[in-house]
Amino acid sequence: RHYRIAVIPGDGIGKEVVPEGVRILEAAAETFGFRLDLQHHAFGSCDYYAEHGTMLPANWKEILTPTDAIFFGAVGWPATVPDHVSLWGSLLQFRREFDQYVNLRPVRLMPGVPCPLAGREPGDIDFYVVRENTEGEYSSVGGTMYPGTEREIVIQETVMSRHGVDRILKFAFDLAQSRDKKHLTSATKSNGIAITMPYWDQRVEAMGERYPDVAYDKYHIDILTAHFVLNPDRFDVVVGSNLFGDILSDLGPACTGTIGIAPSANINPEGRFPSLFEPVHGSAPDIAGRGIANPVGQIWTAAMMLEHLGEVEAANAIVAAIETALREPASRTRDLKGTATTREAAEAVLRAFAAV
Amino acid sequence: RHYRIAVIPGDGIGKEVVPEGVRILEAAAETFGFRLDLQHHAFGSCDYYAEHGTMLPANWKEILTPTDAIFFGAVGWPATVPDHVSLWGSLLQFRREFDQYVNLRPVRLMPGVPCPLAGREPGDIDFYVVRENTEGEYSSVGGTMYPGTEREIVIQETVMSRHGVDRILKFAFDLAQSRDKKHLTSATKSNGIAITMPYWDQRVEAMGERYPDVAYDKYHIDILTAHFVLNPDRFDVVVGSNLFGDILSDLGPACTGTIGIAPSANINPEGRFPSLFEPVHGSAPDIAGRGIANPVGQIWTAAMMLEHLGEVEAANAIVAAIETALREPASRTRDLKGTATTREAAEAVLRAFAAV
Ligand SMILES: CC(C)[C@H](C(=O)O)[C@@H](O)C(=O)O
Ligand SMILES: CC(C)[C@H](C(=O)O)[C@@H](O)C(=O)O
Repeated sequence: RHYRIAVIPGDGIGKEVVPEGVRILEAAAETFGFRLDLQHHAFGSCDYYAEHGTMLPANWKEILTPTDAIFFGAVGWPATVPDHVSLWGSLLQFRREFDQYVNLRPVRLMPGVPCPLAGREPGDIDFYVVRENTEGEYSSVGGTMYPGTEREIVIQETVMSRHGVDRILKFAFDLAQSRDKKHLTSATKSNGIAITMPYWDQRVEAMGERYPDVAYDKYHIDILTAHFVLNPDRFDVVVGSNLFGDILSDLGPACTGTIGIAPSANINPEGRFPSLFEPVHGSAPDIAGRGIANPVGQIWTAAMMLEHLGEVEAANAIVAAIETALREPASRTRDLKGTATTREAAEAVLRAFAAV
Repeated sequence: RHYRIAVIPGDGIGKEVVPEGVRILEAAAETFGFRLDLQHHAFGSCDYYAEHGTMLPANWKEILTPTDAIFFGAVGWPATVPDHVSLWGSLLQFRREFDQYVNLRPVRLMPGVPCPLAGREPGDIDFYVVRENTEGEYSSVGGTMYPGTEREIVIQETVMSRHGVDRILKFAFDLAQSRDKKHLTSATKSNGIAITMPYWDQRVEAMGERYPDVAYDKYHIDILTAHFVLNPDRFDVVVGSNLFGDILSDLGPACTGTIGIAPSANINPEGRFPSLFEPVHGSAPDIAGRGIANPVGQIWTAAMMLEHLGEVEAANAIVAAIETALREPASRTRDLKGTATTREAAEAVLRAFAAV
């Protein structure tokens, strides 16, 4: 087995945690006997932008298309490049151009992570957020009338296609069907967003008919966020539009203690294009450059990537090593009330991995 | 002092809690020496819809415009009328037609309410969500192409006007300025929703310049929901668009234990039209008709309405009575781990009010 992986650290703490993710990947390759061809890229960062005036080289598609996966850090450095420029020039473009229409994010309460919710134990919270990743509220259609005047009006369109909605719902129902609870929750807001969201609901109902063994319910996004806090044990698979999935996949990890350790996969399920794997956290300018960022999100992301590539055993071993390491305060970074630096926290996972 | 109040219970538990809200209003009038002229209306409910085929009579504006305020329960009975029909035919129409462009919702951890967040005490969490209430994501502009076919595309426009954005920001900055902390947080998503949200941010910056004594920050909505769970003590005034404000004003009360006690005000600050007061909770079909709904949301709503009308003493006395009553398990409904019926919980507040 041989995998070509593009490595794009991006900005801020991305540059600090990606090398730690790479080390666990190399250890896994060694232990589980596969080969990795890692191609490191400086593009997809605001440093690159400063030099070239674009986030990506013109031939980025030719460079990345032949890879098996993209291992991504985080992008964004608002002090020099506005977020909507850096993001739409890199990450959001990858998602769209590589048709990574599934954004998959596990929400799991891990041992050793201080949980902000009272009385919850590891094992109580364990579900997936499935987010539509290519259309919906993240559209590039719209504009401004009477710019700069009192009459200024700004319009942006949310666009949902049957193609786009049905394929993400199918992925979510398939995932729910493969799990013990076989339960799906759909995020909606059809009472307020009364054109696109009733359509989303309709497609959920149509898809639901094809999965008689999956029980599903629909919650408006407002009350759904309340249930994440009040009843997080209720969920199994939660599916939402691009925006709702984005919100729920930060809120979910926060309910399990931190977004600092959460991984995510941007998947093109058909495999026509490479999928992209990145932690849920961003580039965190406030703590960048200090060697204190939590590397666990990037390391867990490495596990998700390996699972996607078929290296399930290696992936499980990494997750087990994370769980072992997190139990020790000395192996946790300070966002988790530990004392470790990025390096030390990553070392602890590597040691636990070697011992598996 | 003499106030004309339209009372619209609406659907489900609205019909059970509004009478309890009315009783505290009457007690307050008696104690604090003002007069109430209560006009009870059956319209604005799905029962009314069943009979008349519309949610409101044709002359609803003539009926309601001369009132000083609208005391509203909850609307929606999806078993018979789709939510987007019942809501857009009543509540959302009031908000728009009466230009109630401010939706104001306190988030406060009350004594006796089991808090889902570990280690938080009453006093720790005390802020306001200020929500834009008339435009933004709740638009009625959009539609469907190729309906019913594989090529189906559904589009809905988010519309922000300078007029609409600036006036809500002004209200929020004014509110922040009037408070001790003088701090404002703006909800955005300018990295993903890259047309309307950067505009929102721009207007926040412009408005911020006019309030040099108010410190403000901007958070993307995804990470902001995470901070509601992880650092709820950080907030003072949080302002958001129609959708973001909607989400945050359910999540906030959930972080303080329940949305069952949270009140809200839909305000036309200029007083050209009546303002509308309603609990944050909905009609709750699942528990309607059983006499177990929590009346505290409606009672706190009564206090908000009186405060708005200038009866500040009466309003404070009601909130104090709520705090007293909530301390006793026997005075709490079961959603708050108590044993009281709707009636008993309301009686407890009335007793505490009489003793103030
Ligand atoms: C019922 C619904 C349309 C409404 C809204 O989204 O505005 C409600 O959730 C609220 O917050 O008042
Ligand atoms: C950085 C931003 C554009 C991005 C998103 O909203 O998709 C991020 O929040 C995420 O969740 O991956």
